[in-house]
Amino acid sequence: MEKLKEYVSVKDEDHFYHQGAVELLIFNFLLILTILTIWLFKNHRFRFLHETGGAMLYGLVMGLIIRYVTKSPDVESGTVYECEKLKSGPSTLLINITNQVYEYQYKREISHHNVNGHQGNTMLQKMTFDPSIFFNILLPPIIFHAGYSLKKRHFFRNLGSILTYAFLGTAISCVVIGLIMYGFVKAMVHIGQLKQWEFHFTDCLFFGSLMSATDPVTVLAIFHELNVDTDLYTLLFGESVLNDAVAIVLTHSISIYSPKENPNAFDAAAFFQSVGNFLGIFAGSFAMGSSYAVVTALLTKFTKLCEFPMLETGLFFLLSWSAFLSAEAAGLTGIVAVLFCGVTQAHYTYNNLSADSKMRTKQLFEFMNFLAENVIFCYMGLALFTFQNHIFNPLFIFGALVAVFVARASNIYPLSFLLNLGRKQKIPRTFQHMMMFSGLRGAIAFALAIRDTDSQPKQMMFTTALLVVFFTVWVCGGGTTAMLTWLQIRYLKPLLTHAGPPLTSTLPEWCSPVARILTSPRAYGDQLKDGDTVYIINNDELTENYESSAHIAVPAQDSTASTQATSKEDIQEGDLGLGGYKLQIQRTAGQPQNSLA
Amino acid sequence: MEKLKEYVSVKDEDHFYHQGAVELLIFNFLLILTILTIWLFKNHRFRFLHETGGAMLYGLVMGLIIRYVTKSPDVESGTVYECEKLKSGPSTLLINITNQVYEYQYKREISHHNVNGHQGNTMLQKMTFDPSIFFNILLPPIIFHAGYSLKKRHFFRNLGSILTYAFLGTAISCVVIGLIMYGFVKAMVHIGQLKQWEFHFTDCLFFGSLMSATDPVTVLAIFHELNVDTDLYTLLFGESVLNDAVAIVLTHSISIYSPKENPNAFDAAAFFQSVGNFLGIFAGSFAMGSSYAVVTALLTKFTKLCEFPMLETGLFFLLSWSAFLSAEAAGLTGIVAVLFCGVTQAHYTYNNLSADSKMRTKQLFEFMNFLAENVIFCYMGLALFTFQNHIFNPLFIFGALVAVFVARASNIYPLSFLLNLGRKQKIPRTFQHMMMFSGLRGAIAFALAIRDTDSQPKQMMFTTALLVVFFTVWVCGGGTTAMLTWLQIRYLKPLLTHAGPPLTSTLPEWCSPVARILTSPRAYGDQLKDGDTVYIINNDELTENYESSAHIAVPAQDSTASTQATSKEDIQEGDLGLGGYKLQIQRTAGQPQNSLA
Repeated sequence: MEKLKEYVSVKDEDHFYHQGAVELLIFNFLLILTILTIWLFKNHRFRFLHETGGAMLYGLVMGLIIRYVTKSPDVESGTVYECEKLKSGPSTLLINITNQVYEYQYKREISHHNVNGHQGNTMLQKMTFDPSIFFNILLPPIIFHAGYSLKKRHFFRNLGSILTYAFLGTAISCVVIGLIMYGFVKAMVHIGQLKQWEFHFTDCLFFGSLMSATDPVTVLAIFHELNVDTDLYTLLFGESVLNDAVAIVLTHSISIYSPKENPNAFDAAAFFQSVGNFLGIFAGSFAMGSSYAVVTALLTKFTKLCEFPMLETGLFFLLSWSAFLSAEAAGLTGIVAVLFCGVTQAHYTYNNLSADSKMRTKQLFEFMNFLAENVIFCYMGLALFTFQNHIFNPLFIFGALVAVFVARASNIYPLSFLLNLGRKQKIPRTFQHMMMFSGLRGAIAFALAIRDTDSQPKQMMFTTALLVVFFTVWVCGGGTTAMLTWLQIRYLKPLLTHAGPPLTSTLPEWCSPVARILTSPRAYGDQLKDGDTVYIINNDELTENYESSAHIAVPAQDSTASTQATSKEDIQEGDLGLGGYKLQIQRTAGQPQNSLA
Repeated sequence: MEKLKEYVSVKDEDHFYHQGAVELLIFNFLLILTILTIWLFKNHRFRFLHETGGAMLYGLVMGLIIRYVTKSPDVESGTVYECEKLKSGPSTLLINITNQVYEYQYKREISHHNVNGHQGNTMLQKMTFDPSIFFNILLPPIIFHAGYSLKKRHFFRNLGSILTYAFLGTAISCVVIGLIMYGFVKAMVHIGQLKQWEFHFTDCLFFGSLMSATDPVTVLAIFHELNVDTDLYTLLFGESVLNDAVAIVLTHSISIYSPKENPNAFDAAAFFQSVGNFLGIFAGSFAMGSSYAVVTALLTKFTKLCEFPMLETGLFFLLSWSAFLSAEAAGLTGIVAVLFCGVTQAHYTYNNLSADSKMRTKQLFEFMNFLAENVIFCYMGLALFTFQNHIFNPLFIFGALVAVFVARASNIYPLSFLLNLGRKQKIPRTFQHMMMFSGLRGAIAFALAIRDTDSQPKQMMFTTALLVVFFTVWVCGGGTTAMLTWLQIRYLKPLLTHAGPPLTSTLPEWCSPVARILTSPRAYGDQLKDGDTVYIINNDELTENYESSAHIAVPAQDSTASTQATSKEDIQEGDLGLGGYKLQIQRTAGQPQNSLA
């Protein structure tokens, strides 16, 4: 978002105001609209268009307005280079040989491919912000929040399966998409729709790896409030979080894979180097993330920072972010680092924090996650119209959609079959369908695609990735509720048995008379005891862990023992409001709150 | 901070990582160091170097390291423009006729004036971020927090005096500094140190207006924890917050003041136009800020958003930020808008919020304020070495220091004299000395100065402003404790009478044996009842207001009545942890907490 500003700040005239304010204001406006819509939807339990889909829709409409309503002030951007300003002797000279002014080399290159003729609309340029903002500012809080609020018990119970899906599954998905796309590309070249030189097999693999990132943002956002089975949720969540990390490292490895001779031929040495890179980067990022968390844990243990909750929160926040930044700076993958940093922070540091800091960190990351998530989805909507170098190739897009689904199927079903051979608690068929269906593509695929749009193939990939995201979020995301119903994961058990969750809190409002009749009185009280149908509330897992570990930890930490003893009650108090809007829904449904903590 | 990134992202080689990560990491590192130092200082009640001064010091050291230790990879920045990348047909051509590569017109201009010969050190360029980030990202939370946590009762009791100091005082200060600087400039021209054309009288006035912004950041940070008299605090706080707003609008008005003929001659028409501009901008910004707060109040009143604390907090945050951005976009002053938005939000919207949102908003803005404040001060330290176009003119700097103090004196003493003629409760002589002494220059003066560094005079002003900030923060800021002691505002009353605050909590640790002997037992309990020596705790004022207004407001708000009734207790609970580290200090001093709420 900040990137936008320097375009304006170049102009001297309105030096004192307006620098980037309009662009930020547009985002604010979109977010405010989104929040009001979310509230409206939540209030009416309307779930066919999800909030992320809504944010994207608003972004789309705003993009449309910016593109076709605002005028293109070509002349305005020309005034930057008035001759009188050169009196002090320029060190470089910018000679404009078209009607466009571009500050950057890579922008200049791209502009040539502009297929829509909307050159020079500065508003469009301003609304297109730097991909590094995605990576350095918007993604870390989302991924950290995912790690920090991971339901650890369920996660480790399903660790083997999650790792299999994440590593093996993503590799399968990448190769399958790569192969299918290569087939499509060959066919397109054959019918003359594409020039041969544009697409190598490595490009297809690159596309395959970036399209293999199923999005935790969307998956989480949708499942978080659908009260699905905890094991399914953890499986899906763990897979999508880890698989992002894998996809990112994979994309990186492929992008630096450089066979010496023919780029289409298989080069064993380069391949193994890529595999080595992949493993090295993954392990390094993991180590980097965990180390920062360990440092935070030690700092919070041995200093009495807990007397100053804000300093503690600040330190926690900065060290966690540093994990991400250090990894990026060291050539590793920040997303992986910050993910494992989050997991480790929740496991260790969290127990050292003061009660106040526990609340603060939870709320802070919840809030940042919420904002970042919605900014990304708004921006995705915007990008369809404001990004100026789209290359729409219907055949390629169709191919990508086919490839994405085939790849997802050849990832989930065979792996589930294999895993079920070894698992005591089998992954049922319905779960597999649900995992297949919920392989949404979201922020990460988009961010990976937008990171490199220098060449025509990359631009085509970006456009295609964006449309695949739209399709999966709107169609699959919107249809999740229907799918869950159809697969009988959600409503059937409470309908046919006394088990919770009560239908009154899961069915839409207009069904409430029916729901009230069909729900057993026991369901209201039972829901939280039954391990199989536990509500998905991110934050109380942390509390659980805290409470169980507090008794063990006290003897070791003399200095903080008194704080811990007194703070246990505080946490229960604090948690009343902490589950966020999730908890509030339940409260309105009339259940006793204290059974949670 | 984000601005830094595009320098790196231009390079294709390390496209996949590192984009801006190192620069952000440096800031993170500085902030972590600062936090640890603050903790150390607080722990030992060491107050001779204040945290803002500390942050600045670390920034300075880091700037020194970046400047003299990192090498200058001139060649590196040249690789951006490889010819092979131009294959797709460039629309513009950048011809480099020196050894430097600059993306921007204004950078190109500046580079000519580079006096230190450190051209082409890309690390230095990267660490210099866009001034608009100050204005759009870092300042709003600080100013909003100031408005949101204003002690309203004391503020309105002293409103007349505050307005007089803010409006009349700032105008006096601006003119006095302008005149003195004009005298210095004339003298410098006379002895041949300066060329005539460089400085007009309007430039001097411009400098006067930007140097008239006494900083609420520093003043607040220092006085907030020094337990000074509430009236003095409110007077100082109100003055410094409002006077910033006035100084910003004044600077803006002067910068667009353009007499038709001789720039040194007085042009009545242009002058009155400037005065008109000033009043219009101020009133407009006030209206803009209040309107957004009113919209937020109505939204939170009529929707049941309080069921979803995070959405509510999000809406609150976004609408408040929008107040700032809208004002900037409309050509008004965002700082003024966001200040009055904060005041109005605290007065109205706060009462509509759920207990959870009350906590969340307070903590969120407290945290953002803390981070933004320290980033700014770190950056100020950095800027001394990383900004590449400093013009150090000893005579000008000396003149500025003299002017700043003379101007402060001719603002405070005459106005206090006049005000005392009308005030029932006089402003004592010691207060006046303290106000005189605490006229620190900080973030706003710096931000105003860095906003425009295109010409040599502006660069000289920037360098001078930076040094004046250093001087006032370190010397005046560091000496505040000594000054308060010397002026007998702080320790004498508790020493000689039974009144609080107890000396054990105000004196440094090593004095504690003496302090314990000299403190009356009554002081521990009395301190919070005595209106004259009330502790300065920002947040409890809000609670107070809430509680007094709740009884009146309930009948009008049927829908939220039940929530309000139940939430009153919650707030008291919540507030226990909310005063942040301030409250914790008192807790360790062993006073009963509940007497606060």
